[in-house]
Amino acid sequence: MPELRKDPVVGRWVVIATERARRPSDFSPETTPLRGPAGCVFCPGNEEKTPPEVLRVGGTAAGAWTLRVVPNKFPALQVEGEVQATGDGIYDRMNGVGAHEVIIETPDHYGSLAALEDSAVADLLVAYRDRLVGLRKDPRFEYIQIFKNHGAAAGASLEHPHSQLIATPILPELVREELEGAAHYYRMKERCVWCDIVRQERRDGLRVVLEEDGFLALAPFAPRFPFETWILPTAHRATYESIAPDEVDALARLLRELVGRFNEVLRDPPYNYALHTAPLRTTELDYFHWHLELMPKLTKVAGFEWGTGFFINPTPPEEAARFLRTPREGGAG
Amino acid sequence: MPELRKDPVVGRWVVIATERARRPSDFSPETTPLRGPAGCVFCPGNEEKTPPEVLRVGGTAAGAWTLRVVPNKFPALQVEGEVQATGDGIYDRMNGVGAHEVIIETPDHYGSLAALEDSAVADLLVAYRDRLVGLRKDPRFEYIQIFKNHGAAAGASLEHPHSQLIATPILPELVREELEGAAHYYRMKERCVWCDIVRQERRDGLRVVLEEDGFLALAPFAPRFPFETWILPTAHRATYESIAPDEVDALARLLRELVGRFNEVLRDPPYNYALHTAPLRTTELDYFHWHLELMPKLTKVAGFEWGTGFFINPTPPEEAARFLRTPREGGAG
Repeated sequence: MPELRKDPVVGRWVVIATERARRPSDFSPETTPLRGPAGCVFCPGNEEKTPPEVLRVGGTAAGAWTLRVVPNKFPALQVEGEVQATGDGIYDRMNGVGAHEVIIETPDHYGSLAALEDSAVADLLVAYRDRLVGLRKDPRFEYIQIFKNHGAAAGASLEHPHSQLIATPILPELVREELEGAAHYYRMKERCVWCDIVRQERRDGLRVVLEEDGFLALAPFAPRFPFETWILPTAHRATYESIAPDEVDALARLLRELVGRFNEVLRDPPYNYALHTAPLRTTELDYFHWHLELMPKLTKVAGFEWGTGFFINPTPPEEAARFLRTPREGGAG
Repeated sequence: MPELRKDPVVGRWVVIATERARRPSDFSPETTPLRGPAGCVFCPGNEEKTPPEVLRVGGTAAGAWTLRVVPNKFPALQVEGEVQATGDGIYDRMNGVGAHEVIIETPDHYGSLAALEDSAVADLLVAYRDRLVGLRKDPRFEYIQIFKNHGAAAGASLEHPHSQLIATPILPELVREELEGAAHYYRMKERCVWCDIVRQERRDGLRVVLEEDGFLALAPFAPRFPFETWILPTAHRATYESIAPDEVDALARLLRELVGRFNEVLRDPPYNYALHTAPLRTTELDYFHWHLELMPKLTKVAGFEWGTGFFINPTPPEEAARFLRTPREGGAG
């Protein structure tokens, strides 16, 4: 029988459609033939085709870098100007002030998170931290969303490996819902809801995918998408920026291994991930716990979901976790 | 400069990314070659391949029908059983009781809403009403979502023209948000927010697409998607089921014309639509106003949106409305 499950933080129900249960081999991830490095603005040698960089890792001569952060040439929000809110009858608008940056993860056009050295993944995770720390000082911004789109079907318009960052002048809706849900839970229980998730998942073991010094990867109880996986620090941490150097190394190993398992079990799927961290104008909140949400793109979101905000997921997370824990056993065959 | 806009009902912000402004010709709607009627379970002659029908329009002999409603053979929720909620540590679950039906809109495998006779579209709209009225009696259900997925990229797994209906034992999240937002607005103003939208949009004219006896099609002020269009009754009506026969005819003409304009301006795009109507356990609410939300599928939803619930829309609704109002002027050329 299908099952309805409720996310313990935001209260969102999902349908786990067990009657349609889908194994990895039932999905055909959408892949687009790669265009290759010709004309790629993120490849070494084309540094002048992007706006001037705000961060660089590696040597200073052109081509010797291993990671670059540059403003997006076609930004969704614009970095100049002051935030101004205006009304228009019953409507509210605000000018689109913000920051939109691209983190070029590697000079290798065909590089992928799973194929990078652990140290290169660690550099990427440090770059996320450094940009959060740098942009936090700008009083115009309320939140910074760090995310990655991998593959055309997951919304990547350029194929050279990159992440993105958008700083927004308002607190986004889902972040607000997470904060409100987590604060409500804390008021009732005096415990962080994600700390409770970590405890219950480690005890049950059913949805645990991987664990690495201080970090847990798990299939959440009420996932919107098949094979959705979250990474959380096992100890309470509200802001991603508080991550210590040795923690970065462990997180890098875990992230690289997890993406490698997606690639193995789900045949190089397109995917998105999004970092959820405490808003900029807060400090170490007792009730918020940063986490990274990874979502392989295996199904289409359709009219039912857009109408209701209610997702139908054909793969129980216990099954997803089992396949990701033991990729050989449940692989693509 | 890009602009942030807030939906006046649910308070969701979107980015109207004017720097990336996209005209209809900038989109390449994803199309999949049609497989044709061979093996189609919804075509006449294959009636025994679907579960027994719950509603039929047209003659009783096989093949003589013009519309059929049948239970979904692979339902997301199951119609037998009582609703039972259980806890599991910090988590909540419920057995997946509900109804999942398919409305086969026409016997013609290649039929499309825009190509049907107005009377056939009216039959479809009456079928929506009749199933809402029929399922409303079942005390296990809180809400009924009627929706349509057209085209593989919009999540349609079968190409024969059909709509779907899912009855849920809980109130879905977006419906709850709309109810709460609208009730809040009503408490402040003693007016229905959608009645105010209709008034302001008719006065401004900028976002109006079409009007037909008692119904308005408009591009909403803060749309999630390019060319998103809503249809609303101009007079206050909380429940879709309250629609009168002459209103059905006007709505059918408007819906058929609007989908025809999508096809003309956007080159037969995949699309979704979702009916928003008052929950089953309410009567004629003063603060809720039914409406149909239509969403052509032209862009990918990616990591930023999944992380924040905040949508980046590259087409200002004023532009979308202008193209849809005068398709020849702004057509696909």
